[in-house]
Amino acid sequence: MRFCRFGDDRLGLVEGEGIKDVTAALDVLPMYRYPFPAYDVLIENLEKVSERVRQVASDQPSISLGGLKLLSPVANPSKVIGAPVNYQKHLNEVRSDAQLHHDNQAHTAVIQKTGLFLKACSSLVGPGEGIELRKLDRRNDHEIELAVVIVKRANNVPASEALNYVAGYAIGLDITIRGPEERSLRKSADSYTVLGPWMVTADEISNPGQLDLRISVNGEIRQNSNTRYMILGVPELIEFASAFYTLNPGDVIITGTPEGVSPIQPGDTILATIEKIGTMEVKVRAA
Amino acid sequence: MRFCRFGDDRLGLVEGEGIKDVTAALDVLPMYRYPFPAYDVLIENLEKVSERVRQVASDQPSISLGGLKLLSPVANPSKVIGAPVNYQKHLNEVRSDAQLHHDNQAHTAVIQKTGLFLKACSSLVGPGEGIELRKLDRRNDHEIELAVVIVKRANNVPASEALNYVAGYAIGLDITIRGPEERSLRKSADSYTVLGPWMVTADEISNPGQLDLRISVNGEIRQNSNTRYMILGVPELIEFASAFYTLNPGDVIITGTPEGVSPIQPGDTILATIEKIGTMEVKVRAA
Repeated sequence: MRFCRFGDDRLGLVEGEGIKDVTAALDVLPMYRYPFPAYDVLIENLEKVSERVRQVASDQPSISLGGLKLLSPVANPSKVIGAPVNYQKHLNEVRSDAQLHHDNQAHTAVIQKTGLFLKACSSLVGPGEGIELRKLDRRNDHEIELAVVIVKRANNVPASEALNYVAGYAIGLDITIRGPEERSLRKSADSYTVLGPWMVTADEISNPGQLDLRISVNGEIRQNSNTRYMILGVPELIEFASAFYTLNPGDVIITGTPEGVSPIQPGDTILATIEKIGTMEVKVRAA
Repeated sequence: MRFCRFGDDRLGLVEGEGIKDVTAALDVLPMYRYPFPAYDVLIENLEKVSERVRQVASDQPSISLGGLKLLSPVANPSKVIGAPVNYQKHLNEVRSDAQLHHDNQAHTAVIQKTGLFLKACSSLVGPGEGIELRKLDRRNDHEIELAVVIVKRANNVPASEALNYVAGYAIGLDITIRGPEERSLRKSADSYTVLGPWMVTADEISNPGQLDLRISVNGEIRQNSNTRYMILGVPELIEFASAFYTLNPGDVIITGTPEGVSPIQPGDTILATIEKIGTMEVKVRAA
């Protein structure tokens, strides 16, 4: 199944070129007063919600996707985790370009040593919200990545069992201000994490390590690779992350970007595609 | 006023050596079904809640603090932000000790260049929950820090206005696994951010840059300094952070640690004190 969120926090079921508004299915979720759960309640109850979605969808007309404002398919992650330099050719380009590494050896070490980084959850938007660039005196880059959504609490999970902890996949854009600071700052500006166009549930993608991914800016292809070139694959990233902290339902891991990162400017239009997921268009403007 | 959270998500008003259970005051907050606001709803409504707390408290008996399980006074921050090497003597000790810098120049650069880092919100606990150490084959250190809680959306706020954006202050412990990885990973294990013992509202602390802070482990003083030695003070940290991203109600900034960081082990008892806030005891165990 393919879940999207759109408009004014509506829930959608994507079928072919259209979607059905299945917001009514959220009635299976409990209501809360402060404090709220520190994880995504929809993803925690994905099975129950999916069942209800099937009931609700049959009565709904199909709406055209064109013109809908797509939001992040995950609303309340407790963490957005990034995998730095997880494609060898991207590591090579970072090492060979001072505009990318800024003389900071932490930016050129291998992922096994650099580890993972966090992006602020407040940086998360959907493709329909667009990217608002800050720090326009610096270089701002696009990075396309396969995004993995965690379905249940994962703690010290071995790679061999890790795919059981995946709810689904989406396209992730890891927008990045270049500079000397730690990644968790430079990649956390509002709107610098784009997730979309929807979440494809894990049953539709048996091998996340064999997906073409590409991104174009104003019609020109900039990155074009395949997830088989990831240094740490999805299972290994879940093992690595869950050895440091508990992954919660709705946590998002963006799995690193291939070579070809390049600057974006206000006015640009990004088109990002991952095989078996889909394509999303994202507009860039100044903050 | 001094707000704590304790037990099974109860809200407390701290008065002298006792507290009053004012959980009933939460009835002024709205209920939500998915999705939840991406900020702390109690802090957003702090004025309204405070007013209701005053009404509710008058009917409540005073309970002794001893024996209560204190939780983090902030339940739903969207970000926990750290200020690395923000005391010169701590920067000096990091630079002179390979066990602290791990040959990673990103660990020894000045804060203006290193910037801020994120801690996972899933790492947040209160003093009553204790610290569960991971990666026991590595050095795990205590760091005491003044913690600042943001009260309203802050975006590109100049230092001169920054204190208007503060809800209150608490003691923060930034527990740290030493190693080569980025801070946002090594400082984000579950329970590695301790916030407590309560939040003192900003009206009680006119100058956050003039507070004694100290920490002892098993009765032995390890860090003992004053927030006047911070390189970037609270107003400057809010300016710096809000230039990169929006700060939301309930976001927590831990403002850096003075010299004297040292290892902790399962079985240790930490006592942390900050002037005008209070003292909290935290037990350390193995995960």
